[in-house]
Amino acid sequence: MNDAYVHGYDSRESVRLQDQAGTLVDLLHSDTSYPAGSIVLEAGCGVGAQTVTLARNSPGARILSVDLSADSVAEARRRVDATGLTNVQFRQADIFALPFAPESFDHVFVCFVLEHLSRPVEALAILKRLLKPGGTITVIEGDHGSAYFHPDSDAAHEAIRCQVELQRAAGGNALIGRQLYPLLVGAGFGAIRVSPRMVYVDSSRPEIVDGFTRKTFTAMIEGVRDSALAAGMVTAEVFDAGIRALYRTAEADGVFCYTFFKALGEKVRHG
Amino acid sequence: MNDAYVHGYDSRESVRLQDQAGTLVDLLHSDTSYPAGSIVLEAGCGVGAQTVTLARNSPGARILSVDLSADSVAEARRRVDATGLTNVQFRQADIFALPFAPESFDHVFVCFVLEHLSRPVEALAILKRLLKPGGTITVIEGDHGSAYFHPDSDAAHEAIRCQVELQRAAGGNALIGRQLYPLLVGAGFGAIRVSPRMVYVDSSRPEIVDGFTRKTFTAMIEGVRDSALAAGMVTAEVFDAGIRALYRTAEADGVFCYTFFKALGEKVRHG
Repeated sequence: MNDAYVHGYDSRESVRLQDQAGTLVDLLHSDTSYPAGSIVLEAGCGVGAQTVTLARNSPGARILSVDLSADSVAEARRRVDATGLTNVQFRQADIFALPFAPESFDHVFVCFVLEHLSRPVEALAILKRLLKPGGTITVIEGDHGSAYFHPDSDAAHEAIRCQVELQRAAGGNALIGRQLYPLLVGAGFGAIRVSPRMVYVDSSRPEIVDGFTRKTFTAMIEGVRDSALAAGMVTAEVFDAGIRALYRTAEADGVFCYTFFKALGEKVRHG
Repeated sequence: MNDAYVHGYDSRESVRLQDQAGTLVDLLHSDTSYPAGSIVLEAGCGVGAQTVTLARNSPGARILSVDLSADSVAEARRRVDATGLTNVQFRQADIFALPFAPESFDHVFVCFVLEHLSRPVEALAILKRLLKPGGTITVIEGDHGSAYFHPDSDAAHEAIRCQVELQRAAGGNALIGRQLYPLLVGAGFGAIRVSPRMVYVDSSRPEIVDGFTRKTFTAMIEGVRDSALAAGMVTAEVFDAGIRALYRTAEADGVFCYTFFKALGEKVRHG
């Protein structure tokens, strides 16, 4: 870990964010800031949901954001252009066939991408080759097995299990957050530190109840209803009861917990 | 929340502890310190496992520690005496029939007690009556449903479920951590803040792998084997496979997660 390269990434500082963070963006991203002049690869930018934050937090860095989907790249470009940010370039590319020379980047940033890949260690190893020695990789992933709540509900866990199984059937892994440490070890990174970012929601913070429990997590599970029923994973009765139970956790006496994992690894300099 | 009364209990400060904490004691207790002259009730001190830390962190406070079991009180007294601490008194008493006048205490501290009670809100309401107006209650509880790990294992979750069911059969609640907010609301406390304390364990911190994953959590689950088998909750094969799977998470590529919950509430002054 080269502290000169990643300002602000101090584990105490980062965990301190958990109670300060007004939004999920703060919780996950506000301790990632790259110094002026550094060249950063965002691998898998999607429609740019994280790109804007990344570019804002590192105004002097040059960010190159790639995604497999040309449509997503176009949308991400529009989104970033609309903010007036000028430190991001975009390119359509496959993470398993990136058109860059080895040691092209000072840092790599990967957020909500590994969960979709069937070969995450291979992807990480490819990204490592693109890093300069001493460069860092930052990886952020959720973990749907980290969700628990009050009142508890077997049906809710069944509905969540449907999402996990569908993602597995698609070659991904919705439980990948907890695995970041062994994945980064497997790809040969050093100085690995994993920092869990727990979202704890009770009714003392109604904006998070609404923004996270209802509109982020429960809406995401609700979104797999048709696929789960079509796959015969669950009955409509159980699934719908599970969704109701998840919304129930957003009431005044309810509690909802979910944990994201953020990992930092370094391409260790040799001898 | 009266900041003058509870030095150091700042939520940012407390969460910052998560990465600094060398031990579970630090993670849970080091942000609880009562000012000189304050009178503190520790309700349910058991054999004094927390009492020593409590007394050390608040050297000028006068702590009165009670427990239902006279044997436990005797052991707690021996343990505290052995440290040379002189600011703790002990008394055998039932939390549901405490021999103290209303408004006798500046603060109340309750750690790993509510999980054993069938009427936790009633206990909290009794403790609230003993508090002076403006006084605080600090509650710490675990939550066995917060345990997840890599590699994942259905058998391990089954073994954990046995502990949860046995505790429920005994009138307790091993999933109580997540419920601290509604419980404190139910007992009429105000200014409630819940701070989760997640223990994240990977092999970069071998002392926590050993001290927490192996010797605290897995040993605790292992300890219910006979009761679980006698109750017909699980087969020996599944339970033993579950224990092996939990120890498996302590290997080099394993990860173990568990969350304690710490809540602070205030007896709000009227009028």
